[in-house]
Amino acid sequence: MTDDNHLFLRACRREPVGRTPVWIMRQAGRYLPEYQALRRRYSFLELCENAGAATEATLLPVEILDLDAAILFSDIMVPVRAMGLDVEFDPGPKLVRPVRTAADVARLSPPDALATMPFVAEAIREIRRRLGGRCPLIGFAGAPFTLAAYVVEGGHSKTFSRALSLLHGEPATLEALLDVLAETVVRHLEMQVRAGVDAVQLFDTWAGLLSEDAYRRFELPVVRRIATTIASQGVPVVLYANGASHLLAAMAESGATVLSVDWRLPLDRVRSIVGDGVALQGNLDPFALHASPQAIKEAVEDVLRRAGRTGHVFNLGHGIHPEAPLDGVRAMIRAVKDISSDHARMEKEKAS
Amino acid sequence: MTDDNHLFLRACRREPVGRTPVWIMRQAGRYLPEYQALRRRYSFLELCENAGAATEATLLPVEILDLDAAILFSDIMVPVRAMGLDVEFDPGPKLVRPVRTAADVARLSPPDALATMPFVAEAIREIRRRLGGRCPLIGFAGAPFTLAAYVVEGGHSKTFSRALSLLHGEPATLEALLDVLAETVVRHLEMQVRAGVDAVQLFDTWAGLLSEDAYRRFELPVVRRIATTIASQGVPVVLYANGASHLLAAMAESGATVLSVDWRLPLDRVRSIVGDGVALQGNLDPFALHASPQAIKEAVEDVLRRAGRTGHVFNLGHGIHPEAPLDGVRAMIRAVKDISSDHARMEKEKAS
Repeated sequence: MTDDNHLFLRACRREPVGRTPVWIMRQAGRYLPEYQALRRRYSFLELCENAGAATEATLLPVEILDLDAAILFSDIMVPVRAMGLDVEFDPGPKLVRPVRTAADVARLSPPDALATMPFVAEAIREIRRRLGGRCPLIGFAGAPFTLAAYVVEGGHSKTFSRALSLLHGEPATLEALLDVLAETVVRHLEMQVRAGVDAVQLFDTWAGLLSEDAYRRFELPVVRRIATTIASQGVPVVLYANGASHLLAAMAESGATVLSVDWRLPLDRVRSIVGDGVALQGNLDPFALHASPQAIKEAVEDVLRRAGRTGHVFNLGHGIHPEAPLDGVRAMIRAVKDISSDHARMEKEKAS
Repeated sequence: MTDDNHLFLRACRREPVGRTPVWIMRQAGRYLPEYQALRRRYSFLELCENAGAATEATLLPVEILDLDAAILFSDIMVPVRAMGLDVEFDPGPKLVRPVRTAADVARLSPPDALATMPFVAEAIREIRRRLGGRCPLIGFAGAPFTLAAYVVEGGHSKTFSRALSLLHGEPATLEALLDVLAETVVRHLEMQVRAGVDAVQLFDTWAGLLSEDAYRRFELPVVRRIATTIASQGVPVVLYANGASHLLAAMAESGATVLSVDWRLPLDRVRSIVGDGVALQGNLDPFALHASPQAIKEAVEDVLRRAGRTGHVFNLGHGIHPEAPLDGVRAMIRAVKDISSDHARMEKEKAS
């Protein structure tokens, strides 16, 4: 990779960059007509579990939008399927037999990642070959509580009441479930690292439902185990949670290299909470893409200014929504590149 | 009312209390078999818009659970119906013709509250008569952004993407909508106050979707207008938002008498953010009701300890869920009364 191709990894490590790197959570998604075309050829499950289809879906947005990182096309429930649980996509995850009792949990064990998910390693190798060093490839997994929420509930839910009742009613059962999910995630991510991903992101979509006390007791220990295991192999770990302003201080203790934060607090406020030990990723409001090109430019400038020059990866504060207008997406990417390059040039001139 | 019957109002005003008052958001709800029986006799809309039915629903939980406040049975969309919009309940609110454009907003005007919602005033008078000073009666309304979210979206939504796209794409249209909703809410609450409520609660269920900047620009000004208008009439105003840890400092500037907070941050942490100018209401995790009686007692004790002795109204951090076990509810109420009375007695003995 050339220097420019390293932008994302340099920003993760809080090293100086010529401009701020940008990618988009769920960048291969329904907002992209080319992805919709791909979905007419493949089911969602095929896109996840067929290496060729996953490769196409992964490369699509990078090529169309000239982003600074590729992220493996997959789903956080793929390793849960590999555990032998009957996850289907409709389009969200559905389990016919959710995990509800201590006996259900006792039957689970972490799978051999390569044996059960060979298509993941195969896709990673093929994507890297086709990227040819153009930009880094991010692998990913769901964090244990988010996986547990789906596994206990049996699918998406407004309140995840079964998972949260289990937390209060049978805390030891939830702990055992988080433990087996954490080991599954470690194995899955280690397999991705061996296959060649340059960084990983841990998605903890539902962590924000937990009180700070509950997060520290149940989720932080397993997230820390995962993050430190992977980060100790020299691979940056990005930790994302949504609606988790109250968890930022705890998340900063997880050993993650980068915290990916939602749009709710400006990054200078986030920085004052999390300290200087982590990089930050984010955090444009995904609905800001519906504004005028001029308003998008101003919103991007505000994010860049509040993030500061180093240790920042530009992203949305949430996965991009299917309704996002493509013109707005292009305006955002152009603004990030132009404004952050200008800033970098001005600083260089000032310094010389 | 006797001194004990004033507990809730004294706590709202941060005056000393003999024990901590307790009530439950959505205390007339599906977790209560007697409410389910009532629902077999009346539709949800009848419970809201028939004074006799609303009176029964309001009094039910107070009598069964011996709570320290009654809250008017109604729905935040009742005044939206009074504006002439076609809101139905199925069971969540549904609008056949949502408000989407500047022209849609221009057609709206704040209704005469008493002429369009006489059943609300009638219910309040009848509830007060039947309460006979046993405990105070809380009136309520939805906050403008939360009403706008439903009105623009046409019902509940996972992301409220239409409302949030409007915020970014046509901010002036959203501002005009919030303005007419705010005036509607002021009129509705003033009518409730004239009919005899002792306090009001403003429910801002979806405010947590807004970034702090967006909250300060769009919602805080209209919430402040409502809160200061009502509070200046000597009526305590409780402001509730869910998933809004990032908004606490801003909410403390609203002029509300009490902030009702969700379960995400402990109340000592909340207190350090909001300062001493407001009372706090909350904040047991509603799913803690699924724990053992001993664990519920410990959780209640923790909330009471972190809240401190004055300026605290005990409540859940969210409306009670339909699945909540009645035994857990009773254990919670008993624990609040017992533990906070013990604390008060011990302090009195220490002082004498």
